[in-house]
Amino acid sequence: MKYLLVLLLAGITSSAQIQKEQLNLMPWPQSVVVNDGNFALNKNFKVNITGNPNSRIFGGVTRFLRRLDGRTGIFFEQGFITKLNEVPTAELQINCTKSGKIGLYEDESYHLDIKQNQITINATSDLGALHGLETLLQMLQNNSNSFYFPISQISDFPRFTWRGLMIDVARHFQPIDVIKRNIDGLAAMKMNVFHWHLVDDQGWRIEMKKHAKLIEVASDGMYYTQEEIKNIVKYADERGILVVPEIDVPGHGSAILTAYPEIGSKVITLTGGTSEKNIQGTAIATYGIERNAGIFSPTLDPSNPKTYQLLSEIFDEVCPLFPGAYFHIGGDENEGKDWDANPKIQEFMKKNKLANNHELQTYFTMQLVPMLKKHGKQLMGWEEILTKNMSKDAIIHSWRGPNEGMAAGQSLVDAVKKGYKTVLSNGYYIDLMYPVASHYLNDPMPKGVDLTAEEKARILGGEATMWTELATPTTIDSRLWPRTAAIAERLWSAQDITDVASMRKRLDVVSYRLEELGLTHIRNKAVILRNISNNQNIKSLNEFANVCEPLKGYTRNKGGTEYQMYSPFTLFADACGPDAKESLAFDDAVSQYLASKTPENKEKVTAFFNKWIAVNKGLIELSANAPLVQPILPLSKKLNDASQELLLVLDNKSTLKADDLKNLIEQCNTKDHADVELSVYASLKKLI
Amino acid sequence: MKYLLVLLLAGITSSAQIQKEQLNLMPWPQSVVVNDGNFALNKNFKVNITGNPNSRIFGGVTRFLRRLDGRTGIFFEQGFITKLNEVPTAELQINCTKSGKIGLYEDESYHLDIKQNQITINATSDLGALHGLETLLQMLQNNSNSFYFPISQISDFPRFTWRGLMIDVARHFQPIDVIKRNIDGLAAMKMNVFHWHLVDDQGWRIEMKKHAKLIEVASDGMYYTQEEIKNIVKYADERGILVVPEIDVPGHGSAILTAYPEIGSKVITLTGGTSEKNIQGTAIATYGIERNAGIFSPTLDPSNPKTYQLLSEIFDEVCPLFPGAYFHIGGDENEGKDWDANPKIQEFMKKNKLANNHELQTYFTMQLVPMLKKHGKQLMGWEEILTKNMSKDAIIHSWRGPNEGMAAGQSLVDAVKKGYKTVLSNGYYIDLMYPVASHYLNDPMPKGVDLTAEEKARILGGEATMWTELATPTTIDSRLWPRTAAIAERLWSAQDITDVASMRKRLDVVSYRLEELGLTHIRNKAVILRNISNNQNIKSLNEFANVCEPLKGYTRNKGGTEYQMYSPFTLFADACGPDAKESLAFDDAVSQYLASKTPENKEKVTAFFNKWIAVNKGLIELSANAPLVQPILPLSKKLNDASQELLLVLDNKSTLKADDLKNLIEQCNTKDHADVELSVYASLKKLI
Repeated sequence: MKYLLVLLLAGITSSAQIQKEQLNLMPWPQSVVVNDGNFALNKNFKVNITGNPNSRIFGGVTRFLRRLDGRTGIFFEQGFITKLNEVPTAELQINCTKSGKIGLYEDESYHLDIKQNQITINATSDLGALHGLETLLQMLQNNSNSFYFPISQISDFPRFTWRGLMIDVARHFQPIDVIKRNIDGLAAMKMNVFHWHLVDDQGWRIEMKKHAKLIEVASDGMYYTQEEIKNIVKYADERGILVVPEIDVPGHGSAILTAYPEIGSKVITLTGGTSEKNIQGTAIATYGIERNAGIFSPTLDPSNPKTYQLLSEIFDEVCPLFPGAYFHIGGDENEGKDWDANPKIQEFMKKNKLANNHELQTYFTMQLVPMLKKHGKQLMGWEEILTKNMSKDAIIHSWRGPNEGMAAGQSLVDAVKKGYKTVLSNGYYIDLMYPVASHYLNDPMPKGVDLTAEEKARILGGEATMWTELATPTTIDSRLWPRTAAIAERLWSAQDITDVASMRKRLDVVSYRLEELGLTHIRNKAVILRNISNNQNIKSLNEFANVCEPLKGYTRNKGGTEYQMYSPFTLFADACGPDAKESLAFDDAVSQYLASKTPENKEKVTAFFNKWIAVNKGLIELSANAPLVQPILPLSKKLNDASQELLLVLDNKSTLKADDLKNLIEQCNTKDHADVELSVYASLKKLI
Repeated sequence: MKYLLVLLLAGITSSAQIQKEQLNLMPWPQSVVVNDGNFALNKNFKVNITGNPNSRIFGGVTRFLRRLDGRTGIFFEQGFITKLNEVPTAELQINCTKSGKIGLYEDESYHLDIKQNQITINATSDLGALHGLETLLQMLQNNSNSFYFPISQISDFPRFTWRGLMIDVARHFQPIDVIKRNIDGLAAMKMNVFHWHLVDDQGWRIEMKKHAKLIEVASDGMYYTQEEIKNIVKYADERGILVVPEIDVPGHGSAILTAYPEIGSKVITLTGGTSEKNIQGTAIATYGIERNAGIFSPTLDPSNPKTYQLLSEIFDEVCPLFPGAYFHIGGDENEGKDWDANPKIQEFMKKNKLANNHELQTYFTMQLVPMLKKHGKQLMGWEEILTKNMSKDAIIHSWRGPNEGMAAGQSLVDAVKKGYKTVLSNGYYIDLMYPVASHYLNDPMPKGVDLTAEEKARILGGEATMWTELATPTTIDSRLWPRTAAIAERLWSAQDITDVASMRKRLDVVSYRLEELGLTHIRNKAVILRNISNNQNIKSLNEFANVCEPLKGYTRNKGGTEYQMYSPFTLFADACGPDAKESLAFDDAVSQYLASKTPENKEKVTAFFNKWIAVNKGLIELSANAPLVQPILPLSKKLNDASQELLLVLDNKSTLKADDLKNLIEQCNTKDHADVELSVYASLKKLI
């Protein structure tokens, strides 16, 4: 501890020169130069704005001041900034040439210059200036009793113009405050697109005045009012973020068809002579809001003129809520089963010379293009919309990969080669609980593929996707953050910024700072653990959670039926996250020990084993009064047993046969308990 | 630890008979009978509703199921309840005779009968049934691996019809999600009034279509849209809660007068011959949004017809947003300084034979009565409105006490004796950081005063008041909870339920359960401490916070000027709360030791001292890299010094003179550091 303290002191003394490597900037700027000396922060610190920015900069600066005083406890004299050139002598001068326009291709660059007595942010637009303020907040340093900014010059601009996050609010509805705090998180990470997945099998989430049935019967009462949507769009605009709405059609149609079954594709053939419903012997199928996860057959009928009439009216009502230039129409995972089985649809295809369901879906999608164009919107869709007759205006959202039997990001290459603009989401599925490094190293620019400059330019960027089959308002932030920050860096920073160790170090600080925006990714873990513990001490649970990760991919919810949308998500797996906190530290200890079997190195490894043995004991004690601890015990016992034996192994006292020892460790490679897996299994294995 | 475990096991084995005293019910019901045996909970558990309830019961039961599955991890088959008699064979049967009406005097009683295979809730109205569901949730018990309800019969009804909480959203604006989760907290505690203090010197918080200036210049952009207000009223209605809005006039007028200075009372006499403003030599004063706390002079002009025209138009717009029968017009803390100095107002008083400012204020208030009556609303105001000509329809909100130079709750007695209905808030000022016991023992029914049955009936109940000069969205829940739950018990339960030890024990569990409603009173403490620690380990800070309490009364913000509304509230005092966690445990240890100086009893005391010595060391280490820890160090040093000396004292090794020892302990009775005080000072003193 003393050693650590000395190190810390060495690193933070104000007179010490801050090294570039010590800065916890994320996304890492294009150019950073650090010099000797500091700008000292005190309560007289003020901000002044000049030029021709959009008025969003005033709110941005006011929020900047609140965050800075929250971190430092300094009682700044300046409360609100409401107009240009308010304090000409202010220490922080912000100049913007023009009003930033929310959307793609806007100039988001900025120059941040920190001198001993003056800080300036120069940006073409206020959007760049907002980014500059985020960087300045990240530049904040401290010694033992004061805060300062190191003298430095930063020039910065994004690598990609589309740096997005999608949140699915259909599977689990996410209230306004969840959306708002995550928009703040996006802005802090210099992201600029919020893709709002508003409709899916599990619910319709947009208030409709004309087609009120959609919310009356297909939302469970959980939807955004049009005013709320407008407020979110405004909130995002004030933070430099474009909102792209999605209404997923023609598949994922259960909610829409619950309200309007008459435009569904399913045909029901009536057997026998009941005259009740339809004398022709067919009837309209009924649909219900879907409660499970998965891919379902309810699909809109592309041969029915009523389908287009309804969609056109829906777009007429929804499009004006979103001033942005893009509208996502989904288009994914349409199985076409109901199309195949519907004679009317088959006849329609024949008549219109549509050779297969892909062509039928293209026919359908093409009908939407003018409906959106009417409102000044360009159509965007998941990669399945990419078929031969698709409009070149459409933006292709690349998402499939090996899990769907495709080469990762293949559709992205196909799209740009065929002349489409595209956004990458394959590799950014943060709901699947993969480690941050996997997302971080996933570049939108494909490797080993020859693309022309023109083709490359069609790769707009990328988008993290937060599907919410398993995420509630309580847990969603911990699924989003901090990994989305690493994706933000991938999309903003230079292509060669790929040092995972550096990213991890910076991410730890960035994650902590995101708390000030109200994000709950850290704090809610204790809430869930307290519930599991039945209000007992959560220490053991917390320590066990540091070596457990939720099952990855789609394995936690096999077949989509283990968890319904109304199942409890207050379980141990919900408190755990990817990148379990102690895995790397343990792996380092093991590697060091294997490289050099000194007593010190051995002690580092055995400390972990002793901790896990104590954790198991602690969990058993807890479980006497906490039923929710029971499902965790078999797993903790396995780690306990392996730990106990490995302690003997390290002392050369183990009497187990090699195979039995191997089996014992192999027990830790299980996915059978509490929907989590032990993150230290691979490191344990190295010891035998 | 083993001893504790055995005790726990003894208490929770399912076969053991649950004792009434083991139940953590709050507010404690009017009648509780517990019998042998249990109702075992499993996934087949379902709910059925019969009778003629308001449809709010369906949402109430659905939320009940979600909370029950969240606590138990049981995957109930039943997802949503949407109609009467949906599952006639369900284990939980709820029957309501009629639709509950939101407001005073509604029948809120319920009977809960838990049998081995069947639970019934019988209530006159769905409001009673909702209370019954809250009680049922509190009845949940568990052994080591399952959950159950003990067989029992509960009959319950409230003692007072007004069980309220006021939240001030003017001083610090509180977003919709703060309001919603606190309404859920109120419902869980069977409270039924949410008093929304929407306007004060520091801001106007209601969207106005006609008088948009109020939000344009007097809200800093922080206000509720009318739709949001309607949604909150609906949200509260669904939970059985009446919303009472407040627009505070004629004092506390800075925000209103910022928008409409022409109806202000301040007169400015122009000196000299500048012809700029007003040739008569007087001018309209200008006002600004107030940034400090306190009592300010800006006051509406009661002699100006425009004042009434504006207020009438405001009420015309605001009243329809609130279907309830009451409207709070404030009326408090009007100093009358500007009235005294305004010749026009003085003339008006003479002309209308108004002898003093009290009579002038009554004149003013009486003009509002018909404006509100027009919308079916009864006027309510703070006790200052109680003057001789006040309408008997007005409800008097009693708030002043010794701090304001009055006998506590005197106005309540005055009011009922004069024929007014009244609500007590004196003694329920939870923003002032007084201990829970003081609020708990504060009964609306005055002691030692002879009141007739009729007069007693005029005491409608009480209301906790959460003023927000020092409370932000991050900290407000920890100021509200859990103490408001104890006030809820005072207002609901029988008068003789006054056992503080029992209340404390139950409150600990209730507080933990309130987390499931999204309340942040527990979780946000770590957030603030992490920020103070600069992302280091918060253990020492947390332990020190367990013996520190924010300064009480108005002492933290002397004169109302230390903290502006935009000051940082991310400080140590903001992480601390009243009733510091370890004070009682330490006091118990001290008392036991003084009663019997056994080695065991001594060890209990010295363990605290050793902990605080370690805490001080930990804080010093932290402070090397955390400027926000610095202000805490002098206080922690004082506790450290006292602890070290008292360790010597207990070993009879102290060489200090009695006076020096006394001085050392007296050092712990300080209010000079970090706006907190040591909660263990009084107990320390007992040892010398």
